[in-house]
Amino acid sequence: MNLDAVYSKLLVKTDAKMALIVLDGVGDIATKENGEMTPLEAARTPNLDSLVAMGCAQGRMIPVAPGITPGSGPGHLGLFGYDPLEYEVGRGVIEALGLGMDLKAGDVCARANFCTVDKNGIITDRRAGRIATKLCEELCSLLSSKIKKIGDVEVIIMAGKEHRFVVVFRGPGLEGPLTDSDPNREGLPIETVKPTNPNSAKQKKMAKVVAEFYKKALPLLANKSPANAFLMRGIAHQPEIPQFSDRYGMRAAAIAVYPMYKGLAQLVGMKKIEGPQTISEQFERYIAEYDNFDYFFIHFKYTDKYGEDGNFEAKKKAIEEFDAALPIFMKKMPDVVAITGDHSTPAPIKGHSWHPQPVLLYSKYSGSDKLQRFTETGANQGSLGIFESKYLIRLMMANARMFNKFGA
Amino acid sequence: MNLDAVYSKLLVKTDAKMALIVLDGVGDIATKENGEMTPLEAARTPNLDSLVAMGCAQGRMIPVAPGITPGSGPGHLGLFGYDPLEYEVGRGVIEALGLGMDLKAGDVCARANFCTVDKNGIITDRRAGRIATKLCEELCSLLSSKIKKIGDVEVIIMAGKEHRFVVVFRGPGLEGPLTDSDPNREGLPIETVKPTNPNSAKQKKMAKVVAEFYKKALPLLANKSPANAFLMRGIAHQPEIPQFSDRYGMRAAAIAVYPMYKGLAQLVGMKKIEGPQTISEQFERYIAEYDNFDYFFIHFKYTDKYGEDGNFEAKKKAIEEFDAALPIFMKKMPDVVAITGDHSTPAPIKGHSWHPQPVLLYSKYSGSDKLQRFTETGANQGSLGIFESKYLIRLMMANARMFNKFGA
Repeated sequence: MNLDAVYSKLLVKTDAKMALIVLDGVGDIATKENGEMTPLEAARTPNLDSLVAMGCAQGRMIPVAPGITPGSGPGHLGLFGYDPLEYEVGRGVIEALGLGMDLKAGDVCARANFCTVDKNGIITDRRAGRIATKLCEELCSLLSSKIKKIGDVEVIIMAGKEHRFVVVFRGPGLEGPLTDSDPNREGLPIETVKPTNPNSAKQKKMAKVVAEFYKKALPLLANKSPANAFLMRGIAHQPEIPQFSDRYGMRAAAIAVYPMYKGLAQLVGMKKIEGPQTISEQFERYIAEYDNFDYFFIHFKYTDKYGEDGNFEAKKKAIEEFDAALPIFMKKMPDVVAITGDHSTPAPIKGHSWHPQPVLLYSKYSGSDKLQRFTETGANQGSLGIFESKYLIRLMMANARMFNKFGA
Repeated sequence: MNLDAVYSKLLVKTDAKMALIVLDGVGDIATKENGEMTPLEAARTPNLDSLVAMGCAQGRMIPVAPGITPGSGPGHLGLFGYDPLEYEVGRGVIEALGLGMDLKAGDVCARANFCTVDKNGIITDRRAGRIATKLCEELCSLLSSKIKKIGDVEVIIMAGKEHRFVVVFRGPGLEGPLTDSDPNREGLPIETVKPTNPNSAKQKKMAKVVAEFYKKALPLLANKSPANAFLMRGIAHQPEIPQFSDRYGMRAAAIAVYPMYKGLAQLVGMKKIEGPQTISEQFERYIAEYDNFDYFFIHFKYTDKYGEDGNFEAKKKAIEEFDAALPIFMKKMPDVVAITGDHSTPAPIKGHSWHPQPVLLYSKYSGSDKLQRFTETGANQGSLGIFESKYLIRLMMANARMFNKFGA
């Protein structure tokens, strides 16, 4: 029997409120160089400590599978209870979300970048010398103003950083994935995109639309320099994801600052809350919205950012900054709170990693693991053990008493 | 490859003896109100401690899946090594087992309860004012004496508590599940039961038998008051479960006091041992039967009972009572001992819960986790980690050296 179906069958509606607080990439590793401490262990966190003292369960979570380092997409899908191996978020979709674009079901997204071609159409620079973001924006404006529709398909173009941009195709009967137009090295011409499934009528239509897009766009760039052409990759649609409210029976809000996380939350049906720019403002907004939602996803970026920089001290300070704001949140404790990361971003690794992230769970029914603090080493001894991230929301729901007993 | 098939292939016959001692619902949570102690932690358990000191492995077990609270059926099936998501025990079956009825393969069981209907057959009280158990017994006797067979189908009726009773239909070519005759609220007539699969000839026959049962039974109750009719729910057969001796190559005995647990054990093919009424008597009987079986399931009910009552002190005392009897068992230590619960029944929750129950495993080969006691917090640090209950018997078998090496 499908486990998701079992959970659905046992679901009961309650008035419980819950909050998932994500310290992006918070998990870390203790190394000799850092005094055998992780940033969580080295940070002064009096408020987090006081939450732990209220009686929490701890454990560690595997974002996707042992040894697998997730991107932000799979990391968050797991936290939202969707198996990242089953529900994949396309790269074009992630790029579009990162630029704050509102996507609709069925949209096909492509990552694109300006390039330079010679008079024979041979690519001489795949990144057009990494043109300035401002020029990229101008070129995207030009394309946008001239190409709004191709047949019944709406074309939405948005500039990213430097030579990067995103194209969204919106219309009936479209589907990806298509092959790339990027041959992945210089000295070759731009390739014609093709369906990956030659029997898919939707992919064939999509390939025609892209060919038409090239036909209209290339002449507009022909006299520009150095960005006189462009390459497209990861041309795919966002497969449908069961919506949060249908799946869990909860109204969910996303209180994030960065567009990508708001976008990921929106993809599963959460309501994006716009406005807050700091973790204090996010917590204030949580208080203000408390009555309007059942589930709050609150995202804090800087633990990941400084982990990516390899900056142990800054990551530690980001945790302390988060901790300083925590009392605002704790003024209105929901029935269930989980604090964790979407993955680890160890400073010594300067990037996402596969190390299970620590997780803290608080509710009236979580039980106390009698730990003093929330750290990786402490979490290793917690009653939650090591488990896959996708189960976190199920544990939160159990703690909210949202499941009937299974069997008699 | 199916994992059960792998285990079967590796199975070797040994003379090993093993015992699974189930402290029903023993797992608990530490809360501030209880001094951040669980009953296991608060109890004085010198004998359990001495067993731990012999060198045990500990861990925690997930009865079904993260966040899922099991009933006794799935809880025990898991302990017996059957995936509770694959092998479901019907509610009617559980009720029948709880009344101590001996079920045969193919029996269809229904939960029933007396109700009150008005002269137009409209239900005015779904529980007939919760009639006394004695009256229920009289009415069931009346029905039993008048309705013994319907065609080739034997009808067995047994009274439960208050308005509740169970009907077992035994005969060739029967199958459930059928829809309920209970419309689930007053003001409606009794419904006609129907096959859930309209293409099943066996379900069609079963529905006819139930209709005939109603036709014979209702006139017998027509002049009674307030219980002048009855409703039936959960009309289902017990799907076949692979039998214990075939699956594990062991002769198994169940030494339980309460009928439901004896019944669950019998369902998988264990021999019910009748007689013992206390845990001391159960252990004495284990000693007496030692040579007759390879696997002993010994069930202690009171940890669950007092957990359900929310009575922390009584649950703690039940553990101490169990501990006081343990030396009887330890006079004849089998090769492998596991002590655990079928689930947690935390006193603060007053019911079964999803919290992984602690498990202790002793054998010459278990290794020692160097813990002082058997508790939830200690078990969190054990070498067994957190695992699904269905694997416990595999670990016990491994400790009994019952598996050949996999691969070369």
